[in-house]
Amino acid sequence: MSHPKHADPSHDILDVIRERWSPRAFDPSRDVALDDLKRLFEAARWAPSSFNEQPWRFVVGDRRRDTPAFASILDTLDASNRAWAQHAPVLVVVAVRLTLTRTGAANQNAWYDAGQAVGFLTLQATSVGLAIRQMEGFDRAAVARACGVPADFEAIVVMAIGYAGEPAQLASEKERAAEIRPRLRQPISAFVFSGRWGQSFPASGTDD
Amino acid sequence: MSHPKHADPSHDILDVIRERWSPRAFDPSRDVALDDLKRLFEAARWAPSSFNEQPWRFVVGDRRRDTPAFASILDTLDASNRAWAQHAPVLVVVAVRLTLTRTGAANQNAWYDAGQAVGFLTLQATSVGLAIRQMEGFDRAAVARACGVPADFEAIVVMAIGYAGEPAQLASEKERAAEIRPRLRQPISAFVFSGRWGQSFPASGTDD
Repeated sequence: MSHPKHADPSHDILDVIRERWSPRAFDPSRDVALDDLKRLFEAARWAPSSFNEQPWRFVVGDRRRDTPAFASILDTLDASNRAWAQHAPVLVVVAVRLTLTRTGAANQNAWYDAGQAVGFLTLQATSVGLAIRQMEGFDRAAVARACGVPADFEAIVVMAIGYAGEPAQLASEKERAAEIRPRLRQPISAFVFSGRWGQSFPASGTDD
Repeated sequence: MSHPKHADPSHDILDVIRERWSPRAFDPSRDVALDDLKRLFEAARWAPSSFNEQPWRFVVGDRRRDTPAFASILDTLDASNRAWAQHAPVLVVVAVRLTLTRTGAANQNAWYDAGQAVGFLTLQATSVGLAIRQMEGFDRAAVARACGVPADFEAIVVMAIGYAGEPAQLASEKERAAEIRPRLRQPISAFVFSGRWGQSFPASGTDD
């Protein structure tokens, strides 16, 4: 039987996209092999970016290999995130360079390009059996201090990385329910248009 | 022999990540099957987003199925992009909702989440043999007019989608050379740190 969190797509898509989801319950007994972690960053590395700027940066807090770093990143999370994220084996801060290396001008695409890189990283994670939950509920100034993020960079997301665990390990009933509730998405008709906003895709009369 | 644009990764990664690249030369004789286009948007659909906001929108200009829409998007591109993008079978405007549906507050993660969705879409494209080149060289106000982008949305990228063509079809010698030059990326050591900015990853002494 299919996992309740696997997507129910209307059109065939890659298994890594169909099977990806964002757990809060991580198996506290399983660490992430260093080779797998390297694969995730290698996947991010090959993402496209505006002017090939590669604005993404990652600061790794590995619970077993660098316990103080893990603890200092965990400390910056909102309490509700800290409650579950403490059991993930790895926390990673995603930061972006806000300016273009070549000119020093603002890089309007920095966040967007970091999103592409994390998208690649996330699907690579799925392919090796890992899961990721991203958080924006954290204290940015505290992360910048804890991780020494330079002034021309910004910490935008913290990721928890590990193996999905048992919903029962979560303290919150609401969060336990969310672990097994099917994922919901808008239909394609709500976000894809033909030629002009609001016009249905595919264009009517298309005979493909 | 490997394609010159395929990545030379330092660690094993998914084939779709290794083989993805961004051509300017698109095969002018090959259209994109509607089923494949639908697969791309289905892939984007299942990307994660902050508060499951799904801020991404796509306006499709299909050269064969909706020639006026294709032409009106093509018109908004910078001349240097128009020169090659005119031969791509499909142009797609990526727009984002700048506010959260629930509260109306600014959605700081809108661009980032659109990046994740386009990352998923791009790898899905690679898996069906399609290639994508993204552009930020276009007239945003003109795109907003041409596609009827509402005021609380912003057009952030235009994608050319199709099958990679022959470098020789490009008018610019510089662009022809770029089609076969190996892709370059920073090493992981330049963008992944252990615990604190600048500290090498993996942490020294790690015995994994």
